[in-house]
Amino acid sequence: MSSALYIGRFQPFHKGHLLAVKWILGREERLIIGVGSSQYSHSLRNPFTLGERVYMIWQTLIEEGVYEKCVIVPIPDTDSKHAFWVRVVKYCSPPFSKVYSNDPLTTLLFEEENIPVDPIPFFNREKYEGTYIRKLIAEGNPLWEDLVPSAVRRIIKEIGGDKRIKKLYSLQKIIK
Amino acid sequence: MSSALYIGRFQPFHKGHLLAVKWILGREERLIIGVGSSQYSHSLRNPFTLGERVYMIWQTLIEEGVYEKCVIVPIPDTDSKHAFWVRVVKYCSPPFSKVYSNDPLTTLLFEEENIPVDPIPFFNREKYEGTYIRKLIAEGNPLWEDLVPSAVRRIIKEIGGDKRIKKLYSLQKIIK
Amino acid sequence: MSSALYIGRFQPFHKGHLLAVKWILGREERLIIGVGSSQYSHSLRNPFTLGERVYMIWQTLIEEGVYEKCVIVPIPDTDSKHAFWVRVVKYCSPPFSKVYSNDPLTTLLFEEENIPVDPIPFFNREKYEGTYIRKLIAEGNPLWEDLVPSAVRRIIKEIGGDKRIKKLYSLQKIIK
Amino acid sequence: MSSALYIGRFQPFHKGHLLAVKWILGREERLIIGVGSSQYSHSLRNPFTLGERVYMIWQTLIEEGVYEKCVIVPIPDTDSKHAFWVRVVKYCSPPFSKVYSNDPLTTLLFEEENIPVDPIPFFNREKYEGTYIRKLIAEGNPLWEDLVPSAVRRIIKEIGGDKRIKKLYSLQKIIK
Amino acid sequence: MSSALYIGRFQPFHKGHLLAVKWILGREERLIIGVGSSQYSHSLRNPFTLGERVYMIWQTLIEEGVYEKCVIVPIPDTDSKHAFWVRVVKYCSPPFSKVYSNDPLTTLLFEEENIPVDPIPFFNREKYEGTYIRKLIAEGNPLWEDLVPSAVRRIIKEIGGDKRIKKLYSLQKIIK
Amino acid sequence: MSSALYIGRFQPFHKGHLLAVKWILGREERLIIGVGSSQYSHSLRNPFTLGERVYMIWQTLIEEGVYEKCVIVPIPDTDSKHAFWVRVVKYCSPPFSKVYSNDPLTTLLFEEENIPVDPIPFFNREKYEGTYIRKLIAEGNPLWEDLVPSAVRRIIKEIGGDKRIKKLYSLQKIIK
Repeated sequence: MSSALYIGRFQPFHKGHLLAVKWILGREERLIIGVGSSQYSHSLRNPFTLGERVYMIWQTLIEEGVYEKCVIVPIPDTDSKHAFWVRVVKYCSPPFSKVYSNDPLTTLLFEEENIPVDPIPFFNREKYEGTYIRKLIAEGNPLWEDLVPSAVRRIIKEIGGDKRIKKLYSLQKIIK
Repeated sequence: MSSALYIGRFQPFHKGHLLAVKWILGREERLIIGVGSSQYSHSLRNPFTLGERVYMIWQTLIEEGVYEKCVIVPIPDTDSKHAFWVRVVKYCSPPFSKVYSNDPLTTLLFEEENIPVDPIPFFNREKYEGTYIRKLIAEGNPLWEDLVPSAVRRIIKEIGGDKRIKKLYSLQKIIK
Repeated sequence: MSSALYIGRFQPFHKGHLLAVKWILGREERLIIGVGSSQYSHSLRNPFTLGERVYMIWQTLIEEGVYEKCVIVPIPDTDSKHAFWVRVVKYCSPPFSKVYSNDPLTTLLFEEENIPVDPIPFFNREKYEGTYIRKLIAEGNPLWEDLVPSAVRRIIKEIGGDKRIKKLYSLQKIIK
Repeated sequence: MSSALYIGRFQPFHKGHLLAVKWILGREERLIIGVGSSQYSHSLRNPFTLGERVYMIWQTLIEEGVYEKCVIVPIPDTDSKHAFWVRVVKYCSPPFSKVYSNDPLTTLLFEEENIPVDPIPFFNREKYEGTYIRKLIAEGNPLWEDLVPSAVRRIIKEIGGDKRIKKLYSLQKIIK
Repeated sequence: MSSALYIGRFQPFHKGHLLAVKWILGREERLIIGVGSSQYSHSLRNPFTLGERVYMIWQTLIEEGVYEKCVIVPIPDTDSKHAFWVRVVKYCSPPFSKVYSNDPLTTLLFEEENIPVDPIPFFNREKYEGTYIRKLIAEGNPLWEDLVPSAVRRIIKEIGGDKRIKKLYSLQKIIK
Repeated sequence: MSSALYIGRFQPFHKGHLLAVKWILGREERLIIGVGSSQYSHSLRNPFTLGERVYMIWQTLIEEGVYEKCVIVPIPDTDSKHAFWVRVVKYCSPPFSKVYSNDPLTTLLFEEENIPVDPIPFFNREKYEGTYIRKLIAEGNPLWEDLVPSAVRRIIKEIGGDKRIKKLYSLQKIIK
């Protein structure tokens, strides 16, 4: 039984990600969800910790009834040491025979290692998009709540994620 | 709804680990399974990669019907920088309010951070024990097959884990 | 007896920093001075090594008669791994119960760990400001000498810090 | 005015260390106290964090009236990358022209970089010795209290250091 | 017999580099060629792995009949920890008494360690320049083939380096 | 034209290593010499820096007239992260299609990546053996001089390597 890999940063896990997971599960029996840039948090681009992102994905997949077909796997960035990244992915993940990604560097790196990469359709990309959703949260615009699964909405509030994003947004131009 | 944390190296995930998981699930609604020393593999003490261990646990929990209550979370060692380890665990994991562990250093480190630690009963420890099981595999003694869940048995063979352990065992006294 | 923490990069330690130290010592019995971004040097933004900065602060505090109430503690950056930074600070420092800082990210990170953060007044910020002082040094403008304590002035010359800043300034637009 | 460097792990800072500091201060005007293996804690050999050790040394030097002549500087281990260690020391420390040490590897490494190293007399080494003092603490033997300066005794109790050492001692033979 | 050091990133090794090597060999008996930023690859600025760059230089020097006078030595970047970079170079390289470089930061760092640095003439810099050559390759403009030694041309095609650069160029504006 | 890879620590490069190089060159057109554990020095087991070892090999290969067929490539240890080591080797080295090694862990790791490994005959192993040669040097026994190529003998004396080994030997039982 073959597994496929789907990697994102999931900052946060939104409805576009969920639609992609379901679309892949229509084609594959098992799905490994790689949580990329796993070591970064508390920035505007990467506000959530690894554990917070795992929590969102876990609870959403249960609510959607697809958790048994999935496993969640953190993937740390290798920063500019790109030649090591695919090896890191293979180390962290159960075996997989195909990758789903639209990211050109991800595609380049896997294809150099002879691992096939397929694109995924974008679902409502103008709305289901991390930067846009984080901006809405930062501005206190409640529209963001419809763009993420209900478990994600609940968890962001439970962990104070909306407050964190507002604060991070306000310091955007300040170099730490 | 509260979650508990249970950490092991799971080299490999054996029936003692599975009994511990079930015992904890009799007391807790949700369980985070931390895969410790996640960055080490290909030694006699840590033969399996992180991804191989995740694969074993995932498939076993599905076969046992308890996967929905669990999430698998890698926990890298901080080597001798012990003061940072609990912070790493908290970063990698969904929120938890209790830890189950019999390891004295784990217990010391969590208790210094005011996180309660409960012991777990040992189940058949003379047999369900990683070092013993790895030794049986290394010696080609098929008794090991009864000491691990069936998914783990199948995966070890699928990935050639028994051959790897035999080779690692044979070079035990050689310093690389 | 309680201690407070005050963190800066101190590139170099200038009269604004000294005024802040004295202002805090009017409110607290003991002060821990954290030297941030401790691992970086030889750039325009961070020209001085850790040891050079420690040297400046040590000698200034002695000249000002407040050294006994203070201890100097290096704090390395965790780069983008912000979730670990407070843990690093706590590891490196004697115990403290309050932080003085105007940096929003510092404030966010400590407050998430339930450590109170108080702002400090800015003293003559248009002049007592690191970027401005480094620019004056780079341009060979002797006005910088009045903006730092006398021990700092002496040490910068002793270690050739003014020459280093001039050279770093001249290569500003060159990517190494 | 010249400074000398004296490096130890100070686990904990005991009366032998204090006698050495005073002996050096009889020969040198200023002393840099390097706190070695700064990144390690929570082991039997290195029980205390960096901040705890800095705290002990700071308060002891104040009580002894010699703090103004001293500065405390953490020195991380480079593990087996010994060729980089002297560079790390020079980076972390104010300038120094002489090192006091009885450690043969420290001596070798500094002398290869043309930095002179002088030995220091041992003061009552059979009693004023870290391993012995940690063993006394672990065994609950109050004799340890006479072997450390009064500030160190007070701080070890304040931070629960005696309890930590007892627990670490009890798990000595267990591999984490 | 004295050796000199010449450091570049060699992304790729082009005819300007080769002219510099020959010019230095007219002045020095032996030359150490340091391959800088050795850990980075698969970006537009650093497309080639360390091994690929070593391969290009090795084969070119043989074809040019100057390999016996040279040795190739990788030099990793220390990122912003500039104070450690010269120590790294000295660790990685056979002994040298002079450096040839036009890079101002390299010059600053070596001169602070009392190692003399001499400039090298630029040879046809408007054409023999890495950024320009990588751009030509990215655009599929065969002019690049005349700007690199024949061994480099052959190796870039053998390893698919031209295809990699085209892909990297196309994703230039995308943040991974 | 195919290349083979031969990896050792070369502490120091002795006549057994040279015989192995010549034996392999009787079978292969080009040889990549990997200098393993490249980051370690100044211990009894690894006394020489990377640059010192490169210097020894370079000069010996020139004296033996085989340098043009060889390239020297440092290979850092990945410590216990064995799963990443082959990827590191491939990154650091020109392409190779075969490995020569007698080390069982090296063999295991390459074979798991489908890279063939051939053993090499041992040449006079009771004498041409690193530990034995380092012991002779430490004891001041001039017999070591016959066990290394003449360039190595000359370089060890030039860099003071015999004195360093004597000092390291004398501190063998002291834990730094």
